[in-house]
Amino acid sequence: MFPEPVEKLITELARLPGIGRRSAQRITFFMLKWPREDAASLAQAILDLKDKIKFCRQCFNFTDEELCVFCRDARRDSSIICVVEEPSDLIPIEKGGEYRGLYHVLGGALSPLDGVDPEHLRIGELVKRIDEGDVKEVIIATNPNTSGESTALYLADELRGKVKVTRLASGLPVGADLEYADEATVSRAMQGRREL
Amino acid sequence: MFPEPVEKLITELARLPGIGRRSAQRITFFMLKWPREDAASLAQAILDLKDKIKFCRQCFNFTDEELCVFCRDARRDSSIICVVEEPSDLIPIEKGGEYRGLYHVLGGALSPLDGVDPEHLRIGELVKRIDEGDVKEVIIATNPNTSGESTALYLADELRGKVKVTRLASGLPVGADLEYADEATVSRAMQGRREL
Repeated sequence: MFPEPVEKLITELARLPGIGRRSAQRITFFMLKWPREDAASLAQAILDLKDKIKFCRQCFNFTDEELCVFCRDARRDSSIICVVEEPSDLIPIEKGGEYRGLYHVLGGALSPLDGVDPEHLRIGELVKRIDEGDVKEVIIATNPNTSGESTALYLADELRGKVKVTRLASGLPVGADLEYADEATVSRAMQGRREL
Repeated sequence: MFPEPVEKLITELARLPGIGRRSAQRITFFMLKWPREDAASLAQAILDLKDKIKFCRQCFNFTDEELCVFCRDARRDSSIICVVEEPSDLIPIEKGGEYRGLYHVLGGALSPLDGVDPEHLRIGELVKRIDEGDVKEVIIATNPNTSGESTALYLADELRGKVKVTRLASGLPVGADLEYADEATVSRAMQGRREL
């Protein structure tokens, strides 16, 4: 029913998470009323995201410099490392306001059925950081679901004897995603972390 | 908390209708995992929308050619014109499956308080189409709210004596937007249209 460029954009937008065909249509018609500069600015922001963002050399969080904003910050406590699956998992922890240490982003969780084995995650890099640095505690904040728990247990085994390893306390609803946890829950889970 | 290119895209996306900051964040992190081609393809689709889409010379629907897909279609009945406020209003009418005539897109509705007077809408162009063509009926399908109703009455006055003027029947919930009407309701409203 629509001209091809309209159909094309609707299809592209409908691939984004949380956007169905109807929302995609609504956004497309909204953009048709935009001045061209606004559309160009959004298009450029999408390209810049891919061109300027890379992984932090130390913790593998997203960054546009060599080190990410946390690894660059001298006021943060470098003797504690909080291990998460994805960069987006840093958001609720930072919002919790409790944590002042550094991070390590694994890039996923162990899931042998999906072909995700330890060598696919940044576990070697984490062990190296601990071996080379002055780290006193590693807080494992992988998701409280099956693959996150297996990853936590695997990491605890790998790091045993090298460093104190703790796990975020219950308080997080089991089976949920850390990314969507509310701030109070994350804060409580951080306070009640237990040694593995 | 995020590198500037990430913040920038979140801000850009949060300007779209129906997308809050949280959804924008989720979409941005989703895009960070995309291959660059996918991001480039979305960016290009946004630019193409602005560069390739223009108004149909006859009815002012969106098109990427001189005439829109409806005005080009020789099988459609050119003796009936359905008048709508916006191109997106064509979607529910086409989905209703009842209508086989042509369209005329006004580009809004009369709203003197917002500075939208008759000369800001494509009313002159509609009168010209009727004067020059072989039009037997004009169906006014402006939104069933205050400004849509005033527009319908204004058009009925303008066209009186020239052509039969009808209005979509009740069946559409009053105060709502035509764009979001369900197909059955639009179909019923089309069948029960009444002369103004």
